[in-house]
Amino acid sequence: MVTKEDIIFLRQAIDLARRGMESGLGGPFGCIVVRNGEVVGEGSNGVTSTNDPTAHAEIMAIRDACRRLGDYQLTDCTVYTSCEPCPMCLSACYWARLDAVYYGACAADAARAGFDDAFLYDEFRKSPAERQLPSTQLLGDEAWSSFQTWLDTPNKIEY
Amino acid sequence: MVTKEDIIFLRQAIDLARRGMESGLGGPFGCIVVRNGEVVGEGSNGVTSTNDPTAHAEIMAIRDACRRLGDYQLTDCTVYTSCEPCPMCLSACYWARLDAVYYGACAADAARAGFDDAFLYDEFRKSPAERQLPSTQLLGDEAWSSFQTWLDTPNKIEY
Repeated sequence: MVTKEDIIFLRQAIDLARRGMESGLGGPFGCIVVRNGEVVGEGSNGVTSTNDPTAHAEIMAIRDACRRLGDYQLTDCTVYTSCEPCPMCLSACYWARLDAVYYGACAADAARAGFDDAFLYDEFRKSPAERQLPSTQLLGDEAWSSFQTWLDTPNKIEY
Repeated sequence: MVTKEDIIFLRQAIDLARRGMESGLGGPFGCIVVRNGEVVGEGSNGVTSTNDPTAHAEIMAIRDACRRLGDYQLTDCTVYTSCEPCPMCLSACYWARLDAVYYGACAADAARAGFDDAFLYDEFRKSPAERQLPSTQLLGDEAWSSFQTWLDTPNKIEY
């Protein structure tokens, strides 16, 4: 069930999107991470101002929250983001073990504004051979060996 | 066509994977970015040592290359990575406008070693409503307004 709090937090993310764009940080995207009703991370798109193609709002907000909380997992946290996360950012939400995502605009809206989000979702529905970015597997056995070492290592920090 | 150079560069990525794991930086993943036969970026997994769930080898290598080259796009660059990129990292390769990806182990290997890569690829083949991470759209019109401003802004830096 959507709560008044959800609306308030999503408006904060939408506000970050506008402020980031108007400050020249990058595209119109903003995001906050919330735990127990408290904002623990925030970010806006900084791709062009920081020369970092991974500096999407969600990645920035997740990294900010992890820094503040001193953890690489954000269990019990929710993301509020001005636009549906692209596949990079949605994957980051999974890796961060977030509980839920609330978003404003959808990937089709982002596409209408000139961004590749919908194209990327299409790419992931294809087999690797059909994708536009060519990828080739080599040296599978050599590459496996460090996984085997990982499996054989006791007391490693898993994630 | 696979060249001797491709083999050499992929072995460098595999070596980074092992060294990063053995140094306690994180999981057994390494990556390099190459332009015109020269290594311009490198990275290994640093999730647990840096408290950053987005610090996958490919993300680290792409960010390193962008920093060194002073650009948010890596056109004419190729990625060599010890394991098939997860959806987060593959998306980052698209956003960085990379030319090609060479990888060692595959996502199924990563799954056998305890990582979620194959699970994530499955999630992207599902509709949003079927995915394990719940996502909800709200305030679509309010969120669109900053995209409209973006479209109406002349001389913006697109990416």
